[in-house]
Amino acid sequence: MRVNGRQYRTVWVGDNGRSIEVIDQASLPHRFVIVSLRTLDDAARAIRSMQVRGAPLIGAAAAYGICLAVATDASDQALDRAYDMLLATRPTAVNLRWALDEMRRTLRNLPREGRAAAAYKRAGEIADEDVAANSALGERGAAILHDLARKKNGARLNVLTHCNAGWLATVDWGTALAPVYKAHDAGLPVHVWVDETRPRNQGMSLTAWELGQHGVPHTVIADNVGGHLMQHGMVDVAIVGTDRTTARGDVCNKIGTYLKALAAKDNDVPFYVAAPSPSIDWTIRDGVREIPIEERSGAELSHISGRLPDGSVVEVDIAPEGSAMANYAFDVTPAHLVSGLITERGVCAASADGLRSLFPDRAPKD
Amino acid sequence: MRVNGRQYRTVWVGDNGRSIEVIDQASLPHRFVIVSLRTLDDAARAIRSMQVRGAPLIGAAAAYGICLAVATDASDQALDRAYDMLLATRPTAVNLRWALDEMRRTLRNLPREGRAAAAYKRAGEIADEDVAANSALGERGAAILHDLARKKNGARLNVLTHCNAGWLATVDWGTALAPVYKAHDAGLPVHVWVDETRPRNQGMSLTAWELGQHGVPHTVIADNVGGHLMQHGMVDVAIVGTDRTTARGDVCNKIGTYLKALAAKDNDVPFYVAAPSPSIDWTIRDGVREIPIEERSGAELSHISGRLPDGSVVEVDIAPEGSAMANYAFDVTPAHLVSGLITERGVCAASADGLRSLFPDRAPKD
Repeated sequence: MRVNGRQYRTVWVGDNGRSIEVIDQASLPHRFVIVSLRTLDDAARAIRSMQVRGAPLIGAAAAYGICLAVATDASDQALDRAYDMLLATRPTAVNLRWALDEMRRTLRNLPREGRAAAAYKRAGEIADEDVAANSALGERGAAILHDLARKKNGARLNVLTHCNAGWLATVDWGTALAPVYKAHDAGLPVHVWVDETRPRNQGMSLTAWELGQHGVPHTVIADNVGGHLMQHGMVDVAIVGTDRTTARGDVCNKIGTYLKALAAKDNDVPFYVAAPSPSIDWTIRDGVREIPIEERSGAELSHISGRLPDGSVVEVDIAPEGSAMANYAFDVTPAHLVSGLITERGVCAASADGLRSLFPDRAPKD
Repeated sequence: MRVNGRQYRTVWVGDNGRSIEVIDQASLPHRFVIVSLRTLDDAARAIRSMQVRGAPLIGAAAAYGICLAVATDASDQALDRAYDMLLATRPTAVNLRWALDEMRRTLRNLPREGRAAAAYKRAGEIADEDVAANSALGERGAAILHDLARKKNGARLNVLTHCNAGWLATVDWGTALAPVYKAHDAGLPVHVWVDETRPRNQGMSLTAWELGQHGVPHTVIADNVGGHLMQHGMVDVAIVGTDRTTARGDVCNKIGTYLKALAAKDNDVPFYVAAPSPSIDWTIRDGVREIPIEERSGAELSHISGRLPDGSVVEVDIAPEGSAMANYAFDVTPAHLVSGLITERGVCAASADGLRSLFPDRAPKD
């Protein structure tokens, strides 16, 4: 997608054919900075510190992290160490494990001298597959938006989204925002309510920024506002991403997603989840009980970065001295609150049967 | 309640017997500042800018605003002008209208020369009545907390609250927090989950601050977190305040309250609203349709104040340039999501019958 009119992906191989270039998402929206990752440690740190974030992008970045490791030491031990280190960076998103498994399986049976080249090749494929899947998912979701728009006689279609599941969260296109981009590009009058998404403000800082760069009309709201908008008919559809989808359709996504799903249910607003297949964890069913929820530093809640009037960026402490902070990063939305899962293969019910209908080759037999 | 060990109310008459002293809540939690209001304009500005806020305190401050007006000009015209100006400061809270009606009724039939003294007397009574009502409400609510605690065998009782309905929102004691203070002072192991309450962060800035000053254990969370905590049994009860309660028990409170009420319902967590009688608007029934929801400046969402490492306080812009912001300040929680209303006369169902049982002298006859 475009930044200042130029085409970008969120992750790519540098001109030297080895380093991995990423957009530093922790600097947005205040500065647009490209960071060069040269070692496994660099890659792990970038994921842990959320310079790169978003479940699909975490997967691609971790795949490239394996490349950086293998380029230095192609031994089995080094591969396993890289796998373990990258897997430990973030506990919730399943794409991370999926991509690391893909990389290890690909490299394991190759001779050492062929591993580096094969790693870059497979990581590149994983990135390209993400782009293709999101584009396909975007077309499927855009069809839903076109259907909803037909009932509105040309009035703007109001989409609510939480966190950032835009192109910044993926290699390109995004998941929840891919349908929005496709519909907008096709001329549909789409407007997006952007949840701020405290504490890290990925909605305010990333979703609003990328929608603005692409020219999609949008309005930032506090995370508290969505229910009120739905009560007053101001939201036509909600679309969010997912960091892990269970085999029965429970959805683990950014903290606060569950609250919006409850409000959507209470107000008969369709609530869709954009779920590319690598986000599906076929090994678990009950999301509330089985998915580990990452707890991050309370400083993410008490401290925030912003621009002073002179344009310089500073971090300020907004909390009273001495108050404790808790920072749970995800919550689980039970399947019964989800109107449908939008995947690269089509839209299905958020249920074991629904997922099995689209993924008979991958779903457990029960 | 105590600040740095000294006893304070949020509003009082200055030593000169005329000026009105208030705690500047816009400076908290970074600085504790007392502001002196000397004119009607000062009072209106303090309410509009939210230096004083919280439905009960707005009522008391508006009553004192009438005093400041009448002390300068005791004519009927001046009284009406003060009434109109103060009523226009905030559209949602009903205590404001209630207090202004009380003041005008009291003064209207008095000779001009007696109005100033009568105004200060009646405003002082309104303040004292607020303190007494909140104290009584606190005892009623504390009984609920003691009941819930009995089932926990001495484990800490986790109360979730949204926004600030503490003593800072009233003249003293608070509404939603009055039961917490009473229970804490009685030795109950109470812990409060404090919703940050974006965009103005009254939870982070005011509730956490005042609980800390009083020594009540508490943890600040993003507004997104409450649903997750309830899913995992980490909230025993939610208690919030109200800016306007309808005759059938719908509750208009800080934006985001509705989302927490939905989550409480979905997880069988009791959801109580602390509703002193001046918050009840007996003239309306359907809160979603009939209560005007204040829209405030988007700058409250895009800009935030905090401390730099050197202790100086600055305001920073956290938004992307060019993104629109919307700032709805309240939402309505339908009565069926409310477990009970805690009033100064006791606890009742959030329904017309429930309210009538406690307030047969005030409820409409139907």
